[in-house]
Amino acid sequence: MAEIVVPARGETVGLVESRLDGGVLTLTLRNPPANALSMAMMEALKAALDRAREDKAVRVIVLAHGGKVFSAGHDLKELTAHRKDSDRGRTFFTNAMALCSSLMQTIVSHPKPVIAAVDGVATAAGCQLVASCDLAVASDQARFATPGVNIGLFCSTPMVALSRNVSRKHAMEMLLTGEMIDAQKALSFGLVNRVVPSGEVQAAVAELAGTIASKSPLTLKIGKEAFYAQAEMGLSDAYEYTARVMVENMLARDAEEGIGAFIEKREPQWTGE
Amino acid sequence: MAEIVVPARGETVGLVESRLDGGVLTLTLRNPPANALSMAMMEALKAALDRAREDKAVRVIVLAHGGKVFSAGHDLKELTAHRKDSDRGRTFFTNAMALCSSLMQTIVSHPKPVIAAVDGVATAAGCQLVASCDLAVASDQARFATPGVNIGLFCSTPMVALSRNVSRKHAMEMLLTGEMIDAQKALSFGLVNRVVPSGEVQAAVAELAGTIASKSPLTLKIGKEAFYAQAEMGLSDAYEYTARVMVENMLARDAEEGIGAFIEKREPQWTGE
Amino acid sequence: MAEIVVPARGETVGLVESRLDGGVLTLTLRNPPANALSMAMMEALKAALDRAREDKAVRVIVLAHGGKVFSAGHDLKELTAHRKDSDRGRTFFTNAMALCSSLMQTIVSHPKPVIAAVDGVATAAGCQLVASCDLAVASDQARFATPGVNIGLFCSTPMVALSRNVSRKHAMEMLLTGEMIDAQKALSFGLVNRVVPSGEVQAAVAELAGTIASKSPLTLKIGKEAFYAQAEMGLSDAYEYTARVMVENMLARDAEEGIGAFIEKREPQWTGE
Repeated sequence: MAEIVVPARGETVGLVESRLDGGVLTLTLRNPPANALSMAMMEALKAALDRAREDKAVRVIVLAHGGKVFSAGHDLKELTAHRKDSDRGRTFFTNAMALCSSLMQTIVSHPKPVIAAVDGVATAAGCQLVASCDLAVASDQARFATPGVNIGLFCSTPMVALSRNVSRKHAMEMLLTGEMIDAQKALSFGLVNRVVPSGEVQAAVAELAGTIASKSPLTLKIGKEAFYAQAEMGLSDAYEYTARVMVENMLARDAEEGIGAFIEKREPQWTGE
Repeated sequence: MAEIVVPARGETVGLVESRLDGGVLTLTLRNPPANALSMAMMEALKAALDRAREDKAVRVIVLAHGGKVFSAGHDLKELTAHRKDSDRGRTFFTNAMALCSSLMQTIVSHPKPVIAAVDGVATAAGCQLVASCDLAVASDQARFATPGVNIGLFCSTPMVALSRNVSRKHAMEMLLTGEMIDAQKALSFGLVNRVVPSGEVQAAVAELAGTIASKSPLTLKIGKEAFYAQAEMGLSDAYEYTARVMVENMLARDAEEGIGAFIEKREPQWTGE
Repeated sequence: MAEIVVPARGETVGLVESRLDGGVLTLTLRNPPANALSMAMMEALKAALDRAREDKAVRVIVLAHGGKVFSAGHDLKELTAHRKDSDRGRTFFTNAMALCSSLMQTIVSHPKPVIAAVDGVATAAGCQLVASCDLAVASDQARFATPGVNIGLFCSTPMVALSRNVSRKHAMEMLLTGEMIDAQKALSFGLVNRVVPSGEVQAAVAELAGTIASKSPLTLKIGKEAFYAQAEMGLSDAYEYTARVMVENMLARDAEEGIGAFIEKREPQWTGE
């Protein structure tokens, strides 16, 4: 493990505030008023996630937001400014989309579970951010949309994450109409795991994150990686692959400890090995 | 654009009535009593869809039905008559299945969004037609089934569309039992987007179609094509592909207009370019 | 057909009781108290399934359980005992995972529909067994979990079946927290098809199995095989494949009989050919 110091009481690097508490790293987007995913925001968030990869003090990551908007997606003014570039913005747009796609895949390939905590509006790439997380808790004030179609720019990258969370007709309804759905509809679509009253999001996320933070970090890492890998395989390949994963997992120290503790009816002590 | 004249007030070509109103092309199946997908019906419907591909006056397509049945699927009497052919019908059945599969893929690959308006029974290839549309509105009188198993002919082509709309156990329940599900169950399964009282289907579809018809046709075309393409890719390929789509979309005139209008808080004027 | 005699009134071979009634073969797990999937149990269950493949008397298979637990998954004591092997258990674990994966795929590739009847707890590989069945009926006392994460062994093989039944965030919620979900949540997730009062599971399963047992066994075989095969294909390949399946199905005797009976408004007589 590289020596990494994550602040215990909150430190803002770039546009992202980091706070570590009981193994739960909360990354709070702070780019008012809309928490736009400007280049600076995407870089700050990706850097914070990358920093947490090998940090043993971090067991679970929560993506939270300051203000009333989780994130409204790309910074349209920043993008528009580059239409004056000699290539009409092509290079900048390409870089922006590459960074955004890399950020989303950083969440999926991250060894630690990532939970979105949504107490406001999440649209376009902001909705994609929620869909890219392993789990999501929403308040009853949360709303979601992929409204790119309203401004001539279809939410084509957001739909990659969205359509891997919700069924085709639900995804198409959001993508073609661009309209907001409320938290209950997001719950029924499978975009979020839980809906709680607005004042209780933090507590609900803390409970969920705390539950997961109590597990073996090695086991979480093995399982999360295998989950997204097998999801892209046919059944036979998926079984061949996960059967191998299970054998390696069985031979790891934490599984020996965990299974032993279960049989002996005692609490397991994880070492992450 | 080829010069195409779609009748404003309704014209019936073959077994399909075409009516264009405010950018919404309504194709109404008229093959009483069951709107069977005979060869003639499938050809008429495919021709009407093909005709609308390049027609700039058409922004959204609605599939509707005359009579109480949306469609009961293949014309079993027509199929059965060909058992007397020298090859026991093999050539005819092959042609019928090829035409049917082509028709369904014509909907999926169509540049305009297609909405099913179902105010009755949709079974077998009729249910497949609903599943193949991008969106579906049902009345509370609508019912759905894949009942081929009851007559010895499993709904194997319908299940391609069905299983890309609903989860495995739901699809298997419909396929193995052959039983009807009502509109509410179809809604909970994700086979339809909305259920409204029987008298309100037309109004609900008009509202939904109208919303979508107000978007840039170029953006809809880009987005719909990308949606079904990325759905068949792994995550990494899907992001690489859609990131390229986004850059091209950004550089199109309608995105420049739409994003500009959004920033300047005015209505966008689409040219479809 | 090989000559196979399945007992009409119940016979226990190994840890699995077989009972054939009206074309429905009920295989009851009898390995108290937790119906652990020990090597002996997995072998007995796989053998019973294999035996039923070519048996024309068997039209539908039900997986049931004695005691209050459907199955708690692998036999942890049996696995743990092999940590004393010279290879620390690697060979045994490899064999156990291979047998388990083979058992699950035996259900999916089985020519007869398989229905899980769950009136208790189904966890880990026990939950995987439910997910692997074509259909599942649960009582309101049923509960489901993939709790491997609690003992350091992520449910990586169970998630192959689970994630092909339920959406990603639902699967991840079960996998990362390891917590139980009740029957209603399993129903809303799509893991089970029906929830009935505890005393009515047997009747509900008998009705569902009876409905399916009344269909042509050839048609069921053709359709089930095609369903899982097309699920792994892109749209175009899936249609090309299933169109061929439909033509062959049309030319089979049972389809001719079934369609003929439908047109003539009489009951079909299946021969399974």
